[in-house]
Amino acid sequence: MYQSTTQLRVRYSETDRMSYVYYGNYAQYFEVARVEALRSLGISYKEMEEEGVLLPVSEYKIKFLKPGFYDELLTIKTSIIKLPSVRIIFHYETFNEKNELLNTAETILVFVNRQTMKPCQVPKHVLEILAPHY
Amino acid sequence: MYQSTTQLRVRYSETDRMSYVYYGNYAQYFEVARVEALRSLGISYKEMEEEGVLLPVSEYKIKFLKPGFYDELLTIKTSIIKLPSVRIIFHYETFNEKNELLNTAETILVFVNRQTMKPCQVPKHVLEILAPHY
Amino acid sequence: MYQSTTQLRVRYSETDRMSYVYYGNYAQYFEVARVEALRSLGISYKEMEEEGVLLPVSEYKIKFLKPGFYDELLTIKTSIIKLPSVRIIFHYETFNEKNELLNTAETILVFVNRQTMKPCQVPKHVLEILAPHY
Amino acid sequence: MYQSTTQLRVRYSETDRMSYVYYGNYAQYFEVARVEALRSLGISYKEMEEEGVLLPVSEYKIKFLKPGFYDELLTIKTSIIKLPSVRIIFHYETFNEKNELLNTAETILVFVNRQTMKPCQVPKHVLEILAPHY
Repeated sequence: MYQSTTQLRVRYSETDRMSYVYYGNYAQYFEVARVEALRSLGISYKEMEEEGVLLPVSEYKIKFLKPGFYDELLTIKTSIIKLPSVRIIFHYETFNEKNELLNTAETILVFVNRQTMKPCQVPKHVLEILAPHY
Repeated sequence: MYQSTTQLRVRYSETDRMSYVYYGNYAQYFEVARVEALRSLGISYKEMEEEGVLLPVSEYKIKFLKPGFYDELLTIKTSIIKLPSVRIIFHYETFNEKNELLNTAETILVFVNRQTMKPCQVPKHVLEILAPHY
Repeated sequence: MYQSTTQLRVRYSETDRMSYVYYGNYAQYFEVARVEALRSLGISYKEMEEEGVLLPVSEYKIKFLKPGFYDELLTIKTSIIKLPSVRIIFHYETFNEKNELLNTAETILVFVNRQTMKPCQVPKHVLEILAPHY
Repeated sequence: MYQSTTQLRVRYSETDRMSYVYYGNYAQYFEVARVEALRSLGISYKEMEEEGVLLPVSEYKIKFLKPGFYDELLTIKTSIIKLPSVRIIFHYETFNEKNELLNTAETILVFVNRQTMKPCQVPKHVLEILAPHY
């Protein structure tokens, strides 16, 4: 399994009038977290797109346990539990500065060929980098 | 069961460089959809908050079937399948202008007393309005 | 001069912990307002892009007089004061439900040829539609 | 004069279908930049709010020279040109990784007493920290 940790500070714009991080904004945080998880492996998501493989989200789930607040430095633990094939699954856990678990989430993304816009296998170089972790 | 329909036009800001509606933005659309579903019943979410009952999201799930695109007028069908108690569950289906189903989603929200910040029962007037539909 | 009016309801996601509409979100509202102003003239911004003319913003200014709040139905008055050439200038005034002026703003946008990515003249059909108003 | 530098990586959610950073998102970046500028001086904007002083934006201007793109690490140079009184003015310059100037911007913010919601003088401890720089 591959695991990685990313930190993000809550922006004012990301809070709502309940003073919480707006529930919809975690999707952005997880996008940052998974791109940084790949970067920590030496994989650039941007380059993968430019080489013709897109990675749209096909499923997203989140359970909220506690709210996040303005200016908190959140820690997101991202895990890739299985070796990807046509799909890659990321699990996320968000913690606040007191190390309290705020939420757990999961995204399923599908490798898509930009030309055909059909699902395709995970690019070889991505698979080769990930394989030793499983 | 109570069902309601809301329409939303995709803003430029809501698209991403894949030309899709960014996957995280549907959470906002569903927030609008459920507030409009309540409004169509004569329930103002804003007033409920001002009367001391908050309604944070405790769980959110979405499955993406097809992307939404810029300037499309999306139709969201919102359903409240069960009479709420401490929790209220909304189901959503998003359709594009060709009536293609783009995604299905679900949010679970919890009624919270603003003073104590503890879960509480659905406000009486909300229950009375909803009850005849079940 | 051409003037048009658009209404937008403030979403929960658009508020911040000060309970105001976050100052950065008006840029989105004005994007909607100018696209709707063009639509009311029979001009589709989306089609213009697909025909190869982009319209990026080159300048944006806003003065805030009063805040907007959650669930308010805001009215934006959009004006195109001069006939566009390479640039098109939009002025905006945002009003709340009590008809109080919340802010005034201006955006300058430049017509850009998608192939060359260089500034170009306003498309002919846009000019022909606007001309009678000046 | 006080100057500070902040770096921000462009998120996928912040791009639009033109592949640019959406013009409205820079307001968020500048919010981060000014809060980090204050933090680098030992001033916590969050604590200032909790002590009863809000700092809403009264004016915002931006000139766009070049677009920002996905995954770029942007550098924002933030300057506080004058010692603040009732108002504090921030200037911003955004650079990409090639050190190209993307835009220049300015925000004027007003110190507001949370109780009265009226403008007030800059808090003493903020003034004392800033004074030696002018």
